Amino acid sequence: MTQALLPEGFRDRLPPFADAAARLEAAVLGAAASHGYERVDPALAEFEEGLAGRLKAARTQDAVRFVDPVSQKTLAVRPDITAQIGRIAATRMGHHPRPVRLSYAGPVLKLRASELSPERERRQIGCELIGLDTVAAAREIVGLAVEALGAAGVRGLSIDFTLPDLVETLAAGPLPVAPEQVATLTERLDAKDAGAVAAIAPAFLPLIEAAGPFDAAHRRLAGFEAQGVLASRLSGLRDVVDGLAGQVGLTLDPTERHGFEYQSWLGFSIFAAGARSEIGRGGSYTIVHEDGQEEAAIGFSLYADAIVAAGLAPVERRRLFVPIGSDPAAAARLRAEGWVTVAALEAGDTPEAQLCTHLLADGEVRAL
Amino acid sequence: MTQALLPEGFRDRLPPFADAAARLEAAVLGAAASHGYERVDPALAEFEEGLAGRLKAARTQDAVRFVDPVSQKTLAVRPDITAQIGRIAATRMGHHPRPVRLSYAGPVLKLRASELSPERERRQIGCELIGLDTVAAAREIVGLAVEALGAAGVRGLSIDFTLPDLVETLAAGPLPVAPEQVATLTERLDAKDAGAVAAIAPAFLPLIEAAGPFDAAHRRLAGFEAQGVLASRLSGLRDVVDGLAGQVGLTLDPTERHGFEYQSWLGFSIFAAGARSEIGRGGSYTIVHEDGQEEAAIGFSLYADAIVAAGLAPVERRRLFVPIGSDPAAAARLRAEGWVTVAALEAGDTPEAQLCTHLLADGEVRAL
Repeated sequence: MTQALLPEGFRDRLPPFADAAARLEAAVLGAAASHGYERVDPALAEFEEGLAGRLKAARTQDAVRFVDPVSQKTLAVRPDITAQIGRIAATRMGHHPRPVRLSYAGPVLKLRASELSPERERRQIGCELIGLDTVAAAREIVGLAVEALGAAGVRGLSIDFTLPDLVETLAAGPLPVAPEQVATLTERLDAKDAGAVAAIAPAFLPLIEAAGPFDAAHRRLAGFEAQGVLASRLSGLRDVVDGLAGQVGLTLDPTERHGFEYQSWLGFSIFAAGARSEIGRGGSYTIVHEDGQEEAAIGFSLYADAIVAAGLAPVERRRLFVPIGSDPAAAARLRAEGWVTVAALEAGDTPEAQLCTHLLADGEVRAL
Repeated sequence: MTQALLPEGFRDRLPPFADAAARLEAAVLGAAASHGYERVDPALAEFEEGLAGRLKAARTQDAVRFVDPVSQKTLAVRPDITAQIGRIAATRMGHHPRPVRLSYAGPVLKLRASELSPERERRQIGCELIGLDTVAAAREIVGLAVEALGAAGVRGLSIDFTLPDLVETLAAGPLPVAPEQVATLTERLDAKDAGAVAAIAPAFLPLIEAAGPFDAAHRRLAGFEAQGVLASRLSGLRDVVDGLAGQVGLTLDPTERHGFEYQSWLGFSIFAAGARSEIGRGGSYTIVHEDGQEEAAIGFSLYADAIVAAGLAPVERRRLFVPIGSDPAAAARLRAEGWVTVAALEAGDTPEAQLCTHLLADGEVRAL
């Protein structure tokens, strides 16, 4: 009869993984709330044109679209929440004093999967700081990501920093490159393709070497850059990681651009021990207001599924079976003490069938 | 430039309402977890045919649909989560011992709004008990809804019960009605249209009077039903509400059917003081398995937006401004004590701009 399987790239999260994801989310958003980040919950779908124009260089190409029978316009189910936060910051919260600190969590949908991320539905959790992309702002955001993941029990963190607009900045100044070649150069540098880089702009070759453990890579990048164009970026980077060394692993890959299409001076990917792919990313970006004014912002997003799949959120299952005829007040008292009670509803029900670890017998809790 | 407004029926939830909704959800799902209801998080979109066939009499007519470029099949963004829980219970959790207790929370989407509910996106929070629809199961589900809403701070609850398959049951037995007239009769009874009911089947007229405060309505319904066909429903209803009187308002409208299209013997709507429309609903229903086997289930869903809009979730905002140069360890200690700290990131930042109620000065918290 009906189709039981889900479409490729979609899945149901079952117990105990859905519980683990919910706990992870609560811990992350709780840490964010304690730093003044207030929850927003943007609409799941909106006008495609409203979503597309808000972040400089953001795109909606892979969004699920449908025609709205009410407005006859094309609506898109959000493929990303950050662009929605940008829209809200620029419109309904446009007159709110800056910086604005916002947090969010919800599903995002893509029409097509990519090779790197086969999921078409992901749960995105994040924080955005709007109105600033200074070093102080970057320190707060990176530090909050680390603190929030720590609060959620995620261990073995490492952060890989990048400088998304580095190549454009150099190509427009000290190391001129023909405008039509900048995109190819950026892409070849990202791919660490020394041959192609040498053919386009050999002066950029040392950037390929300036990747790896943070301190060494930072030193090589500083050595490469004699003219001082990167001085503020280099000292900014240094200040952002200050205090993180020892707590988390730190690397630098200054020309990594893939996945940082709309970021400006700073980008970062977050990894955790046991997770096969990145568990989050963030960086600075630019919001475009109604009047064309641009505003700096910085934030991070985490992917709950990648974290839970790596088994990083600890799970405990302690269930107390309450036989028929037990005193309801006793069960209520035990719930108030933190027990999960599972009431028998039929004579034949058993603790085993209800996956219970404990039994209420003669008013006492017995381990099974 | 870009469109700032959202499509009709969609909205962004901003601070402090998004925070209030998140707290409400956490309280409801926390209460459910303490009764053994484990979280599931079904896919946001799935094969339309998989969604449509799972609950007996459920429909996907108002779902947002799109063609999947991978499978070339039609996918639907869920218009309701209960049908998805039914699918999961019948497939991946098909061999799990019964009853299965599951909880969930997430957005649902409709292509078109109805007059009664102008929203096209809602946040649905719910619990489903799968494998039973007995009186004991109904008592657990109704009691849990009341307890969970109480834990979330919702006051002034009332529950309106209905018997969704009442008219079909009577028409198939003691009060015969031509099969082709049953749907019209059901609809006219729901509309309390005495003239139309008299023209189709005058024997059903007393049902229109059997609506109102629970005890009186129950008495009238018992008096109407002399043949005993409803005896188990009537004593079941009595047992379900046993213990709730005094705690919540109770009414009975035995022929109300609108919104209970897929429910079987029991349905209920939940109201709260201050909320203009219902804040939730539930009832018993039938899940269809792969092999055509049917399984009884019962559950409830709550609508977070309706509850928060009524101002039922209490909100408190206490924010502590931390000036530049403050000791970070002091701020961390205060967060650990439950404070929300908001760090100044620029020299010109002020507690007022950051909507702070308190200021950290000389290591001490001062109210502003």
